[in-house]
Formats: sequence, C-alpha cells, structure tokens
Amino acid sequence: MNEQPIGFIDSGVGGFTVVKEAMKQLPNENFIYLGDTARCPYGPRPKEQVIQFTWEMTNFLLKKGIKMLVIACNTATSVALNEIKEKLQIPVVGVIMPGTRAAVKATKNNQIGVIGTEGTVKSASYEHAIKEKVTSSQVVSLACPKFVPIVESNQFHSSVAKKIVFETLLPLKSKNLDTLILGCTHYPLLRSVIQDVMGKDVTLIDSGAETISEVSMLLDYFDIANNENGAKENAQFYTTGSTYLFDQIAQDWLGKNASSKQIHLGGTNDAT
Amino acid sequence: MNEQPIGFIDSGVGGFTVVKEAMKQLPNENFIYLGDTARCPYGPRPKEQVIQFTWEMTNFLLKKGIKMLVIACNTATSVALNEIKEKLQIPVVGVIMPGTRAAVKATKNNQIGVIGTEGTVKSASYEHAIKEKVTSSQVVSLACPKFVPIVESNQFHSSVAKKIVFETLLPLKSKNLDTLILGCTHYPLLRSVIQDVMGKDVTLIDSGAETISEVSMLLDYFDIANNENGAKENAQFYTTGSTYLFDQIAQDWLGKNASSKQIHLGGTNDAT
Repeated sequence: MNEQPIGFIDSGVGGFTVVKEAMKQLPNENFIYLGDTARCPYGPRPKEQVIQFTWEMTNFLLKKGIKMLVIACNTATSVALNEIKEKLQIPVVGVIMPGTRAAVKATKNNQIGVIGTEGTVKSASYEHAIKEKVTSSQVVSLACPKFVPIVESNQFHSSVAKKIVFETLLPLKSKNLDTLILGCTHYPLLRSVIQDVMGKDVTLIDSGAETISEVSMLLDYFDIANNENGAKENAQFYTTGSTYLFDQIAQDWLGKNASSKQIHLGGTNDAT
Repeated sequence: MNEQPIGFIDSGVGGFTVVKEAMKQLPNENFIYLGDTARCPYGPRPKEQVIQFTWEMTNFLLKKGIKMLVIACNTATSVALNEIKEKLQIPVVGVIMPGTRAAVKATKNNQIGVIGTEGTVKSASYEHAIKEKVTSSQVVSLACPKFVPIVESNQFHSSVAKKIVFETLLPLKSKNLDTLILGCTHYPLLRSVIQDVMGKDVTLIDSGAETISEVSMLLDYFDIANNENGAKENAQFYTTGSTYLFDQIAQDWLGKNASSKQIHLGGTNDAT
C-alpha cells in the first residue's frame, strides 16, 4: 500500500484527458496535476527550452512526494522523457509509446496519421516508434499549431474551432489513412470535430487510456499501488496561469471542481 | 532493437495459452518455451519444491540468453515470482496480477471466482491481490486438481473432460459470480466446457492476453523490444517429458509444429 500521489505534468490543460482516464481506471490512487499554462504552448518552443520547463515541472512535483511521474504532454515526452526517466528514481511514463502501440494495433492498412504540435512533429518520435514496430508502415505527420490555443482558451466547442480544425486537417483527407493518432493530449477535447472531418472510418487514437493502462501495470510491477483503504479520492491541481480558465475547463472536462492553485516556475520564482 | 528471445516457463503445456497470445501480439519477437512436463502437475507439490523447480527452469532459460522471463504458470507465480524477480537482472512477469486486473475491470457485482491448482488456491494470491484493489470484493476459490492432467494427456476435447469439469465446478454455480478467473494457464484449453457449465453470463478471465499486454509495455518501458527487421518468427520449444504429446498439443493449440526438444532438469542431469 502506497498512498503517495501519482504526478501528471502538461504544458496546460491537455493532460486532463489523461487524468480523466486515471480517475476512471485507478479509483484508489491519489493524483497531483501541474499545467504550465502560463508558458503554453510548448509546441513552437526550442527543444532545450521544453526540456528545461519539463524539468522545472518535474522538480515541483518531486518535492510533493510523487511515487510516479506521467509526462502527459507529447511535446515534452518527445524531447525530455528519456533524460528524465534515466535520472529519476521513480517510474516515469510518457504518452508516445502507449499511443504508438494502440495505433499499430488498430491499423489495418498500415497508413497511420499523426497530428501534434510543431515540436512533436519535428521530433518524429511517433514515426520512429511506429516504424520500429512495423517497418512497412506509412506515417503522415501534420503539425496543428492552432489547436492548443483553441483548447486553452476554452473555445473548443465553438464554430471557430470547427472551421480551424476543418481547414487544418484538409491535407490529410486524401492520404487513405485508417488510423489517426491525436498526438497531443489537448486534441481529445476536439475529438468530435476531428472525427467529423476525418470521417467515421478513421480510428482516432487517444493515448490517454492506453497510457493509464501502462501506469496501472507499472504500479503493480513496482509494487507501489495504493489499496482501497488508503484512497482519499484526492486530486490536487496546480497551474502557472489563470486558475479561472483552468478550473472552468476542468469542470467541463473532468466534471469536478479543480480548485486549482497558482504557482510560479522558473528563476527565483520557483515555488514549492 | 534486441533480438534476444523472451522466455516462457510452465509446469507443462499450459503456458501455450500465453505464448499463443504472444505470437499474435508480438510478431517481431523471438520466443523460447520450457514446459516441465515430466514433473507436472505442480499444483499438489510443496511450495519449496515448486520454487526449486521454477529456479531450475529459470536457470535453463537464462543460459539461453533470454531478455525477459514470463512465468506462465499460476502455481509457480504464486510462490516464486517475487523471489525470482528480485534476483534476476532482466524483467520478470507473472500471470496473477494481469489476471487480477482483468477480473477487477470485468466484474460488476464484485463476486469473483478463482479456479486453480491446489497450490495456487492455497497461496490465496488472487484473493489477496483482488482485495488489495477492491476491499469489498467477495472471492470464492476452488481447487480443480483434475483439470491439468486432462489437458496434459491431450483429453481436453473428450466427453470425460466435460463430465469432470461439470462435477468439479458444480459448487460454484450457486455463488452468484459474474466473473471467473481461469487461474491456471492450462484451463483456457477447457474454456468452452467451463463456459457451458458456468453459463454465458459469467465472464471468464484468461490471463494470457492481459499478461502479454504487460510484456509488450515492459519491452517498450525497458527499451528492449525487437523491431521487424530483427524478427525471425522464431520459437523454440523444450520439454522435460514426452515430445510426442507435447508437439501434438502444440499443433492443436498453436497451430504449428513445435519440434520440441527433450531436456532434463534437476540434479546432475541439469541440461543446457
């Protein structure tokens, strides 16, 4: 029995889609979430800066005594996972391998699309991982830099969102894809629009569910799961940005009052 | 890329049900299987002896250069997993936690049945693991000592098998179970008979599929997966007993010619 929380980090609110699955699959666990909303999006930032920001988030959560870290952000996973996993004493899970496994399992024609931030697409992490598993796969990647700002500004139900998603994904329509990886944890909030645009025959892969299955297994593998008696149904939320918008999106997406606290990261403002 | 094989050990042919799933889910991997048919069943044996036999099998496969060990036997998992996992440098996976996770996920009324060998039932491993996750679960365990011999003698399609399964499982019929764990890797070969006896409303949990999902994740987690270019579609089979019966069951269950080799374990006959 281990009551320590599992930590989740993301550039903003995208990781909610992973936490939502965690709350469903792991009702005995306690969670702590940090979204770096003030510095979101990470997608267009240089690799070195994303690594630095990811370390700052990681260090904040380590001080909170997490027993496992989930990098619930594709951009951060693609550039910082290996380094962080190597240096930390606790298990560290990213979202790219779970998404890859799910996509390889789902595809029938081995024509897989990946949409993500500029950083994720530039890293080619999904492409490498998919081709490691199935050499003959065709992978088409597309950066969608406008999607994260739509979600972070709580506009993902709007007609503007529909227009932007439609225009952005248009180049993928002719690619004969049967599977599309939502390679950014923000994108499942746009899922219904994305599905409309791509058509019902394209399987959308939301790595959240698969990532939490990995978390569940690793909790058992490393013998650090909590049991029911130790569960407090406890989730703490931190953001570096506006708690108002953050809490609104949490309410909409997680169906709960996040009551988030604002913190500062970086430089001398590194809060604890 | 890591072309080393994944090792599977079982008291006999039960682990075929796990290997079958591995061949399906992990087409890029090479496998090596050892069934200790000559000393099967393990179920009625003292704990210390099962641990010793499991070490003998493990040491045989370690000499063959495996990169991961799957203890595809519930009896061996229940008494030897922790010790072997602790001492080996490679990842070690058992079948009890995967089966537990699948059962807890499947049940709606938290009335879970477990059938297994005497050794597995006596260890109460499933009961402990299930109650760690859901304290209020009711777990009914039943030892079925006659099932393994039916399978090992290749009689699992016979009318005798049906009669024995029916008579053995009768006490479970009144327990209001909605989920039944096939807590022995031999039992999925009797699956259709077990399902007939229990009724279609009872979900049968075959830990094989779930175990291989765990193997797949751990291959990625520890970065030891093979890629398609390194795949040889290679599976080697070893048995301590009759290769004739062993190969017959492999042909029937795995649909392939196992061309098994006989080896000796224990004492001065410890083969390599």
